[in-house]
Amino acid sequence: MSSKITPNIVSPPKKIKVGILGATGTVGQRFITLLSDHPWFIIEALGASERSKGKRYREAVKWKQTIPLGGLGLGGIGTSETEKISSTDLRSDDGRVGDLIVKGCIPEEFKTCQLVFSGLDADVAGDIESAFRSANISLFSNAKNYRRDPHVPLVVPLVNPSHFSIIPQQQRLHSPSLSKGFIVTNANCSTTGYVIPLAALEKAFGPIESVLVTTMQAISGAGYPGVPSLDILGNVVPYIGGEEEKIEWETLKILGGITDSETEFDKNGVPLKTFDMHQAGGRPALRVSASCNRVPVVDGHMECVSLRFHRRPPPSPQQVREALSAFTPEVQTLGCPSAPRKAIEVFEEPDRPQPRLDVKGTHNGAGVSVGRVRQCQVLDIKFVVLSDNVSIGAATSSIINAEYAVLKGVVS
Amino acid sequence: MSSKITPNIVSPPKKIKVGILGATGTVGQRFITLLSDHPWFIIEALGASERSKGKRYREAVKWKQTIPLGGLGLGGIGTSETEKISSTDLRSDDGRVGDLIVKGCIPEEFKTCQLVFSGLDADVAGDIESAFRSANISLFSNAKNYRRDPHVPLVVPLVNPSHFSIIPQQQRLHSPSLSKGFIVTNANCSTTGYVIPLAALEKAFGPIESVLVTTMQAISGAGYPGVPSLDILGNVVPYIGGEEEKIEWETLKILGGITDSETEFDKNGVPLKTFDMHQAGGRPALRVSASCNRVPVVDGHMECVSLRFHRRPPPSPQQVREALSAFTPEVQTLGCPSAPRKAIEVFEEPDRPQPRLDVKGTHNGAGVSVGRVRQCQVLDIKFVVLSDNVSIGAATSSIINAEYAVLKGVVS
Amino acid sequence: MSSKITPNIVSPPKKIKVGILGATGTVGQRFITLLSDHPWFIIEALGASERSKGKRYREAVKWKQTIPLGGLGLGGIGTSETEKISSTDLRSDDGRVGDLIVKGCIPEEFKTCQLVFSGLDADVAGDIESAFRSANISLFSNAKNYRRDPHVPLVVPLVNPSHFSIIPQQQRLHSPSLSKGFIVTNANCSTTGYVIPLAALEKAFGPIESVLVTTMQAISGAGYPGVPSLDILGNVVPYIGGEEEKIEWETLKILGGITDSETEFDKNGVPLKTFDMHQAGGRPALRVSASCNRVPVVDGHMECVSLRFHRRPPPSPQQVREALSAFTPEVQTLGCPSAPRKAIEVFEEPDRPQPRLDVKGTHNGAGVSVGRVRQCQVLDIKFVVLSDNVSIGAATSSIINAEYAVLKGVVS
Amino acid sequence: MSSKITPNIVSPPKKIKVGILGATGTVGQRFITLLSDHPWFIIEALGASERSKGKRYREAVKWKQTIPLGGLGLGGIGTSETEKISSTDLRSDDGRVGDLIVKGCIPEEFKTCQLVFSGLDADVAGDIESAFRSANISLFSNAKNYRRDPHVPLVVPLVNPSHFSIIPQQQRLHSPSLSKGFIVTNANCSTTGYVIPLAALEKAFGPIESVLVTTMQAISGAGYPGVPSLDILGNVVPYIGGEEEKIEWETLKILGGITDSETEFDKNGVPLKTFDMHQAGGRPALRVSASCNRVPVVDGHMECVSLRFHRRPPPSPQQVREALSAFTPEVQTLGCPSAPRKAIEVFEEPDRPQPRLDVKGTHNGAGVSVGRVRQCQVLDIKFVVLSDNVSIGAATSSIINAEYAVLKGVVS
Repeated sequence: MSSKITPNIVSPPKKIKVGILGATGTVGQRFITLLSDHPWFIIEALGASERSKGKRYREAVKWKQTIPLGGLGLGGIGTSETEKISSTDLRSDDGRVGDLIVKGCIPEEFKTCQLVFSGLDADVAGDIESAFRSANISLFSNAKNYRRDPHVPLVVPLVNPSHFSIIPQQQRLHSPSLSKGFIVTNANCSTTGYVIPLAALEKAFGPIESVLVTTMQAISGAGYPGVPSLDILGNVVPYIGGEEEKIEWETLKILGGITDSETEFDKNGVPLKTFDMHQAGGRPALRVSASCNRVPVVDGHMECVSLRFHRRPPPSPQQVREALSAFTPEVQTLGCPSAPRKAIEVFEEPDRPQPRLDVKGTHNGAGVSVGRVRQCQVLDIKFVVLSDNVSIGAATSSIINAEYAVLKGVVS
Repeated sequence: MSSKITPNIVSPPKKIKVGILGATGTVGQRFITLLSDHPWFIIEALGASERSKGKRYREAVKWKQTIPLGGLGLGGIGTSETEKISSTDLRSDDGRVGDLIVKGCIPEEFKTCQLVFSGLDADVAGDIESAFRSANISLFSNAKNYRRDPHVPLVVPLVNPSHFSIIPQQQRLHSPSLSKGFIVTNANCSTTGYVIPLAALEKAFGPIESVLVTTMQAISGAGYPGVPSLDILGNVVPYIGGEEEKIEWETLKILGGITDSETEFDKNGVPLKTFDMHQAGGRPALRVSASCNRVPVVDGHMECVSLRFHRRPPPSPQQVREALSAFTPEVQTLGCPSAPRKAIEVFEEPDRPQPRLDVKGTHNGAGVSVGRVRQCQVLDIKFVVLSDNVSIGAATSSIINAEYAVLKGVVS
Repeated sequence: MSSKITPNIVSPPKKIKVGILGATGTVGQRFITLLSDHPWFIIEALGASERSKGKRYREAVKWKQTIPLGGLGLGGIGTSETEKISSTDLRSDDGRVGDLIVKGCIPEEFKTCQLVFSGLDADVAGDIESAFRSANISLFSNAKNYRRDPHVPLVVPLVNPSHFSIIPQQQRLHSPSLSKGFIVTNANCSTTGYVIPLAALEKAFGPIESVLVTTMQAISGAGYPGVPSLDILGNVVPYIGGEEEKIEWETLKILGGITDSETEFDKNGVPLKTFDMHQAGGRPALRVSASCNRVPVVDGHMECVSLRFHRRPPPSPQQVREALSAFTPEVQTLGCPSAPRKAIEVFEEPDRPQPRLDVKGTHNGAGVSVGRVRQCQVLDIKFVVLSDNVSIGAATSSIINAEYAVLKGVVS
Repeated sequence: MSSKITPNIVSPPKKIKVGILGATGTVGQRFITLLSDHPWFIIEALGASERSKGKRYREAVKWKQTIPLGGLGLGGIGTSETEKISSTDLRSDDGRVGDLIVKGCIPEEFKTCQLVFSGLDADVAGDIESAFRSANISLFSNAKNYRRDPHVPLVVPLVNPSHFSIIPQQQRLHSPSLSKGFIVTNANCSTTGYVIPLAALEKAFGPIESVLVTTMQAISGAGYPGVPSLDILGNVVPYIGGEEEKIEWETLKILGGITDSETEFDKNGVPLKTFDMHQAGGRPALRVSASCNRVPVVDGHMECVSLRFHRRPPPSPQQVREALSAFTPEVQTLGCPSAPRKAIEVFEEPDRPQPRLDVKGTHNGAGVSVGRVRQCQVLDIKFVVLSDNVSIGAATSSIINAEYAVLKGVVS
């Protein structure tokens, strides 16, 4: 889990101009909400589809956030604490985001941005994101299109930012090679939530052999309009297309390491880096079985997890609780501003966490909450984990990834 | 699974007078609804607490069923099919149930009943049910109090009615011994739903070694007033007090057989019968791990099940589907009127069954629905099962148990 | 309210072949469910869009009804009561509807139908319905397109089937004139529900002067996919596009009479019939003010109604209750098979009716339920009315209209 | 609306010690949450029932707020802005509230408090609140018990804080007369929400003659456990016991003024003050008709309001919008810290406000949101108003009332 990138941490520039692709969509609206009072990042440009291009953002968007658009600024509010204003206050620069003119999603329109976030839908993200990278732009994407690319890191910021170390290879293999452009993706929301405690447990107790996870996922995970109300009101739908495969596959890439390939080399004979998919070397492979359900909850994915460790005897429930609570990811120690103060909040109450009460936790949606840690009669340990699918499960992960990249000098 | 009781099936008497204990509660209301057009059973007496005693039922009850009380008869509508009237029709004897005077829950008031159903709450069921048995009354209970009693059968009627064979021992060991009185319980609602496909699979493929079950349970399972709306609206509660233990324990009793004890004998030296708890003999023990959640669904428990068979290689998903679909419990072949025409409905659609659409299925809530049968990456097979927790999960099981007892001559 | 059509009632033919347009949509699915065990009507042809044409219905439809498609027949099950089978039973001819090949929505494909129901969406209903009429087909439409047409009756079957009397004029004014083709529409779901008690009260107490109605409408009223879950889960949306205008306008047409125009004549000098829009003659005009809200309820529109009578003093709440309960529409006395046994069920309990418990009432969704009749401090009387928006509010109204037309000889 | 109390505004003391009665209940938890970062008030003492007395608050309470108890301080965080810390931050003094020992609800335990808030249930509030007043304690109550008392002001802080002027009479008539003790109540949640726009409109356009209001109220309005989930999930309940009477009655007291009685005098011959109940003098009486519904929404009461002005012609919808938006209550201009920056937010979007998106608005629940201002076909104007029933509808009103009392010198 330790970073393999250059260890010299740069001090963050006071203002970093950022762009947002897919700005009118659900994820885009979250990027805007989160960045509106960000200490470093300033919203410089918003991109959306042809239909929205040229309009003021407030006219182009069907705003669906509980924080009113009219109360949002452009971020970059300085490093001085006294300049920081509570998000519930009205600000003198109210609504500046709403006044921005929406641009098309072409790299030329984002030349002044030092990095770009993508909340694009998968059906258009592929070509657009590729074009941005080719234009030498650093792109942090929430879309699924490049998650399986062998040269693109799939990064849950509380788990595997060390995978950023593959970016130089991604840039070198591009034709022509790139000095600044790259794509980093974050994981699917249901993967993100449960892989954080898994990482904490592997760090403390060594490899996990098997995981059974049953999810109860919120409707906001499907975007807008997303799930028709007739399908989900007072109902459970025991299926989310492609979700189980994503969890089962992404977990292996995220929890695996990066090693030099023993069989692949570039034209200069340099061994290519490769993701070990949590199964290389002498260690036991990880098997993951997921069952995904949609439930009538607005925000917050609940996941019931049972797992078996390689180590015998396995840790006790109390040891598991302590390891989860003690877990401190590198993005915290490094000082990423959006990292949670506590990565994993462990509940002792028997009936917590619950989405409605705990989705934001004490970490404002940037960490996860675990409860009901107890023995499993079939595997070793079982527990529930709750994550804020629209925060750490989506835009917040992209933002922490970008913060990490800035602090590590990956973005200049 | 074959019956061990006397094989000569008696033809049902035309009219059997029955009583209902706990008649004003949620389960009691279900008993009344289901019995109001039953072909054999006639509602003769209703029992409730002191507060309700002496009132007309319509005044005593806060009716919460979607079928109006005013449209319900007293059952026992004859064996001639032409006398049977659709439940959606208004009947000439409308509302006869509402006119009954509620009695106290004492055996003397139910002397004219040939059998009695109990929908009592657990906090009062213990003493009352015991008193009814001692008064030589046949009692079919939905309460949990006697489920763990080593002489009381815990019967899911589609699974283990053969356990009725322990009743003579229950009667013999009572002091004084009983000629007609006994207690039969049905299982907890979440156990009932998922144990039916387990039984079908054990019948087809031999012992199951491990089961992991994650439930998403409806609010009606908690009775009325039950779950406060502030706890569950737009929420998931990852805990139901005592439920996981019930599933883990009841499954073993239900799926186990009954054998003669090798160490216990009655005063005449007759070996006592004993439940083998699914772990006797040379067969592998069954391990069950349950995680129970409450979800904002009115009726219908969804359960995600993963299991491992003893047999290697395990059956394929298609073989599992076929075995489930072909499962025909004894209560069907015997002709119990409330048994479902199809015990297990297997869905091929990827997103079914769903509580809102499928809880009644084609079996009117007396069977279960299974979907998403597929391989499990950790165990062998996984699937979802949906059961109507207020029908087969509660009163309907008691009623089929009683029908079985009548057909087998256990109730005379 | 008395019929102005020819009084000689014809006895219904045993079998009447019917078609359904828009058969795969929400309303089309309801038509199929309701007609599957209809005593007269036989489903002969199903029409849908190009995408579905040529497929078996079971492959073309995304079935969303709680009664499984596999359990539905084709209706026309004979006039003998003994042939009638309860809808909860499985039938020997199960799934015949699912086997029908879907046709395109062109009149040639429906030549063998004696009448056709339309559940088409408004964006296509205009041209298709017009083509069917021109092809001399009797069409009963749930779409809004022709509701404002001055020659098309807008009929709530429990209120104003007398408006069928304008059909001969509709046929005569068509070029060329029609012998059998016509269009009859039913009203918007929220109009239908509350106009039934209004009609009952006008019949008993004379003209109503003012009505204020605030609706709380179910999501099924918006069809499928309809309302996005993110908009309505745990929420109220105080707006339904066009709905308030529909209620305010349709009420006037429905509660008004039909008179001969004093200013318009056809080419033969025959005075044209005209709807008086509830404001002609010496009587006071009716003013209607509607506020429409969407609430997270699956089925059942609740409406809070306050009204002022012309008559002074106004009737008392008890008189209003009695008049509502006594209301007997012509379609009942005439014997329309789908008419409710009781048009208006009046509740005395203070907290009823409620959608979840009472939407089907004792009338299986073909009548309405009224509760909380009491004095209004500003107007005269207030009450709530609950109607089943997918039954009497949609397909059921079309079907009763067709039954009425058959009994009156309007359809031959 | 102008204050009739002594006009010299005192500057607030830096720290004011306050107590909370009913601290473990729903309203009590809200008081704690709101006061935990209050600039003046310091939580000094918590009172609850015998069952909780003597326990640490964290052990006594079943915490149900979305902001964790562990993140709350004791308020009184200084008048310097730089000392103020965002509520989403973790604080060094986390959880101090949880450490407080719960006291019994007796005045002796609250002697060090300068004022006390009551979130007591109505069944105990009567005697306890009276005892506190007699003990010369200033009490701000959310309970209903004294709302109708002719000497107790019923104050919606954005509407009628001028009614505080009756307090000297309340103290003078007490035996023995009181120097500091008094009771002030705030209004029922559904009254509070809609009376704010009514007050704004009366201020701008003169008397309103008639109001029809139909409410759709959130479940949190009923406290905990409150509404059983089986009653409200996917349902609407058209009845809330006593609620319509409260709205109809409280509105008259709140919108009326205070005048000297012409018939009642105290023993010194001083005329007694009296509430004019919005009907004294030459002005037209106000008639209010309310219909109250419970809907499955967690927080936020929606109310559909239609009203008729005395003035002819009535104002246009645009004039109404402007008057609502311009409304500036005295508590704002006076500088009450918990007063909203904007009392009434007026939405132009046709489908807003909505509870889930707008309940907190830009006013953090201390103001109200109005939308859909348009003509009414029966009265003059109609609109919807949304209020946060657990903030301005409950504890927030008590707190602003107390702030006002401090600034006016009523509490010393």
